[in-house]
Amino acid sequence: MSTRLSSAEDYASLIDKYDTWMFDCDGVLWHGDRLIDGAVDVLRLLRDRKKSVLFVTNNATKSRKSYKGKFDQLGVEAHVDEIYGSAYAAAVYLSSVIKLPKDKKVYVIGMAGLEEELRDEGVSYLGGTDPADRTLEPFSLANFVLDESVAAVLCGLDTTINYTKLSKAFQYLTRNPGCQFLVTNEDSTYPSADGLLPGAGAVSAPLRFALGKDPVSIGKPASTMLDCIKAKVNYDTKRTIMVGDRLNTDILFGKNGGISTLLVLTGITVEDDITGPNPSSIIPDYVTQSVGDLNKAAKY
Amino acid sequence: MSTRLSSAEDYASLIDKYDTWMFDCDGVLWHGDRLIDGAVDVLRLLRDRKKSVLFVTNNATKSRKSYKGKFDQLGVEAHVDEIYGSAYAAAVYLSSVIKLPKDKKVYVIGMAGLEEELRDEGVSYLGGTDPADRTLEPFSLANFVLDESVAAVLCGLDTTINYTKLSKAFQYLTRNPGCQFLVTNEDSTYPSADGLLPGAGAVSAPLRFALGKDPVSIGKPASTMLDCIKAKVNYDTKRTIMVGDRLNTDILFGKNGGISTLLVLTGITVEDDITGPNPSSIIPDYVTQSVGDLNKAAKY
Repeated sequence: MSTRLSSAEDYASLIDKYDTWMFDCDGVLWHGDRLIDGAVDVLRLLRDRKKSVLFVTNNATKSRKSYKGKFDQLGVEAHVDEIYGSAYAAAVYLSSVIKLPKDKKVYVIGMAGLEEELRDEGVSYLGGTDPADRTLEPFSLANFVLDESVAAVLCGLDTTINYTKLSKAFQYLTRNPGCQFLVTNEDSTYPSADGLLPGAGAVSAPLRFALGKDPVSIGKPASTMLDCIKAKVNYDTKRTIMVGDRLNTDILFGKNGGISTLLVLTGITVEDDITGPNPSSIIPDYVTQSVGDLNKAAKY
Repeated sequence: MSTRLSSAEDYASLIDKYDTWMFDCDGVLWHGDRLIDGAVDVLRLLRDRKKSVLFVTNNATKSRKSYKGKFDQLGVEAHVDEIYGSAYAAAVYLSSVIKLPKDKKVYVIGMAGLEEELRDEGVSYLGGTDPADRTLEPFSLANFVLDESVAAVLCGLDTTINYTKLSKAFQYLTRNPGCQFLVTNEDSTYPSADGLLPGAGAVSAPLRFALGKDPVSIGKPASTMLDCIKAKVNYDTKRTIMVGDRLNTDILFGKNGGISTLLVLTGITVEDDITGPNPSSIIPDYVTQSVGDLNKAAKY
């Protein structure tokens, strides 16, 4: 059973209890280009009280550097090393976890931010934003040369997804022995400023379906993302909390990582999902309407 | 346990036993643009013996009329009314089974052949080959006008699949109450002349994943296709046989429809799939290497 927070005392005691605060961004701090009321003040309050603040996002279309620009544009204080995105985590996974040999490459379905993180981690890639793959012209295997050095396919949200990219990725995954199938995250939808659109999980679904097998997923709720954070930040799991709007990504991520969880209802999850006739089996430790509610603790 | 056919007597007795012969095409009669040895002779032999011959294909990129062109080009005798494609069956399903009201429309992810069948059945549609949807430019809901008359989304193999098409289809399926989700077929792969590419099932997989629900499928192995054949052709199920190369489409289609099945090993299924350590649970009545083997019956 989740604890419902409502009084100023509730929020003050919650803040006292946790030293490290991990935030999902879209649906928690902002919606597209619109800040959630009170989000900036809450982050300032936490920083004033010497809390460690981290931003943990599945958004794989932006590198941490360009995602920092989003914070700047909305007037939200953030430092690049506080931002953990699934693009960065995927690059770290390839360079440091599976230690892709230097003579091997990754075929990328994804956008410039994903490529930037791969470059920063020294991972060679092809595909991605290559104009040759940005096409709606018919794809023919007769004109395709298989690059035998491709040892992984990495797929993130790609709004230029097309049949050529899918076909090439499919060739690597079926014809290069041992080629790994990775996805930055499995979010089924993506919250654009004007509503939901298909997410990264939807973009990789054709490969999953054609192969009949599931990929290794890097982002929330997978623990790979937390492994990446652990490698860089010291935190006490008992005094760490994940704040998010999605039960099956943010809250499950916290549970998988053994940290506490706070669900906000400003994003994907609605009241009915937790208290309706068919409630989710994923139960957050705490629930509040909006991240802005934490400002009630300010007077303590 | 399947019966293995090998002697001339085996083939002669098989031909005697069945009056209606349903053939899958790709992987059975041809590979891409290359005829399977003996396929033309077998069809002639069956016609000479007054057998009824039908071609049952999941290919939804071509209308029956243009698919007939493929037969002509390869020198295979066929008549338009012998050809049952999943594009045609989908159009019949919309016009005659669910009886889509005349003021309603279908949003199409698919190619010209699917549009042609819809037009011939008097079904209004949008999307498809519309140049406005053939784009890799960013899709924004801010510029999207929801057509409330869209009552179904129909998805087939579309080699110009892109994020705009997927996003529009997703809007109709989530925002138009009762909007139906149909797919021409669920083939995970498509046998091109030079190898396997992602199939219609892969193209619709993003919607399936984003929605978290399965579509109604028209083509093999679904019985919708057989309902469509039944409406047009008289056949005795006990004296009808389906010849195909895929266990989970062709052979399962025959089993679902209560007709006999002959598996050929010139396409997707290999010997190991039926006699290896992990054999399929879908067991054809008969197995032979190639459709051309049936010519051994010619001397009887």
